[in-house]
Amino acid sequence: MAATIEDVARLAGVSIATVSRALRGLPDVASATRDRVVAAAAELDYIASPFAARLASGRAATVGVVVPFVNRWFFAEVIDTVETALRKAGFDLLLYNLGDEAGRERFFDVMPMRKRVDAVLVVSLVLSDEEFEALALLGSPVGLLGLERPGFLSSRIDDVRGAQQAVEHLLALGHRRIGLIGGDTDDPMRFTPPLHRRDGYRDALRDAGIDPDPASEVLGYFTIDGGGDATRALLELPDPPTAIFAESDEMAYGALRTIRRANLRVPEDVAIIGFDDQYNAELLDLSTVHQPVAEQAIDISTRLLRAIIDGDVEPATVVLPTELVVRGSTEAACSVY
Amino acid sequence: MAATIEDVARLAGVSIATVSRALRGLPDVASATRDRVVAAAAELDYIASPFAARLASGRAATVGVVVPFVNRWFFAEVIDTVETALRKAGFDLLLYNLGDEAGRERFFDVMPMRKRVDAVLVVSLVLSDEEFEALALLGSPVGLLGLERPGFLSSRIDDVRGAQQAVEHLLALGHRRIGLIGGDTDDPMRFTPPLHRRDGYRDALRDAGIDPDPASEVLGYFTIDGGGDATRALLELPDPPTAIFAESDEMAYGALRTIRRANLRVPEDVAIIGFDDQYNAELLDLSTVHQPVAEQAIDISTRLLRAIIDGDVEPATVVLPTELVVRGSTEAACSVY
Repeated sequence: MAATIEDVARLAGVSIATVSRALRGLPDVASATRDRVVAAAAELDYIASPFAARLASGRAATVGVVVPFVNRWFFAEVIDTVETALRKAGFDLLLYNLGDEAGRERFFDVMPMRKRVDAVLVVSLVLSDEEFEALALLGSPVGLLGLERPGFLSSRIDDVRGAQQAVEHLLALGHRRIGLIGGDTDDPMRFTPPLHRRDGYRDALRDAGIDPDPASEVLGYFTIDGGGDATRALLELPDPPTAIFAESDEMAYGALRTIRRANLRVPEDVAIIGFDDQYNAELLDLSTVHQPVAEQAIDISTRLLRAIIDGDVEPATVVLPTELVVRGSTEAACSVY
Repeated sequence: MAATIEDVARLAGVSIATVSRALRGLPDVASATRDRVVAAAAELDYIASPFAARLASGRAATVGVVVPFVNRWFFAEVIDTVETALRKAGFDLLLYNLGDEAGRERFFDVMPMRKRVDAVLVVSLVLSDEEFEALALLGSPVGLLGLERPGFLSSRIDDVRGAQQAVEHLLALGHRRIGLIGGDTDDPMRFTPPLHRRDGYRDALRDAGIDPDPASEVLGYFTIDGGGDATRALLELPDPPTAIFAESDEMAYGALRTIRRANLRVPEDVAIIGFDDQYNAELLDLSTVHQPVAEQAIDISTRLLRAIIDGDVEPATVVLPTELVVRGSTEAACSVY
């Protein structure tokens, strides 16, 4: 006969709840206790079945993850890390990609995850009051990554401060005419970075006594091609910028391409700095602002799991630091471009 | 009182099944019929509820997607496209990322998706007979993307032929010493491209009367850094290659970086070709083999949905064509590198 969780608890000399917690890799189990439970489970050939665990706990053992995109670096990294954290704790991941405005409206109208999940994680979406209300009505813990709201668990970076770091670096190099390539802050899909990174850009300029010039702020839509087009527009200004801050590395890649095609030099003619420190940034010798993506994902996943299991987690916001990374696209003469 | 699906069917003059199919965006509904159903639903303010639909149909309205990675370009593209196709048909996506060998074993042991999904899609994993058996025991339709097996729905490219296209291009340019940067064919995670792309490389050389030299085949582990290290090893050979075929664009990016750092010119000293036509390939002026990722994902999703709904889909394999894309890293003198 197959061993049961009770058998494991008896052999390890702990409660059934502790066996469950230890085998799911949940926090707050002393490592000596965990070792004893794992040894007992191994001795008895006990296999924890997620399906049985779901039945026993009355939980769906599932977390819904809501994203505006899947196939962009940041979101793929987040999904990968969250899925790993959930899997280790015996939870499945239901993925909701809003895709477009219609998809978003439909999602918040019908809430397809209703009765299917124990918790929800929302990634980098600017949510309306109605949307927050719809989430709260689910009655499950809600985690936010890349945004915050009083009363919700949240993990994020300080996008305003990160953008300031980028622009302060350009200012310190002597640049005064600094262009911005950003996202559309009126985009109905409203994701958070475009708003905050633009604010940081403007703050840094004002702190240096420079009035932000609306003509120097152009839209790159967070894509490579968009960044390329935006750079063309900046270069055609009567008094073009000597440096450009792109709100994402992908837009900065497009900027590098456009500048190269215009036979201009980086950084001598135009300096470029991005944001994210994506995996290709080093390859392209791009200065940027590093953000800790996996760390945010692990932090919010861990606290969300604790909220599901223990139900007594304070809805705090954790803000993780960004870091300026200086490479050849702003500072050194560089043979690449 | 809220309108029911019966009301919509009556107003549109069609069956309830047709309303359901039309509103879920499923195939095989004439567009005139679909228009009539949509107009009737709009007139009656009918909102299809996935939750109600799940209850009514006895289906989970969920497809499980099994991948070896999430945060790599190919897999993020596939997940994005599949999620969109499923969402339009009213289905949710449960994501299973195997992560590592232990995760893989545990997954096929306990099958956490059991009783939770109407179908399973497996992406680019080399599966053992036991793993295929475990999938078949779920009793649900199983789709394969990037691999095939008699009796299963499958969509893929011809990796062997794609690799041949790359190597034939290098041969046509006069190269005879052609190195290979590949994946580990003994990797316990066994995903499909490394096996087939290496075979295509060897076939193309043999067809040109060249004996493949094991010393010219090095491992790059499908990462940028791995590709860089592999290139260093190739350049240190007594008789280094004049051209390199990397089995993925990411490994080719690492190759470009290493060659640049060695103060060698691309393509004059070493020509490089990748595989995939990832979004940065054009930016880096990398010759490569384009594969239609979204097309494979749409094809398999559509047929899998049809198998769930109609249950009468032939388990055929669709093979989509790859295409050689020639850029500066093999052919033209190029100022980038």
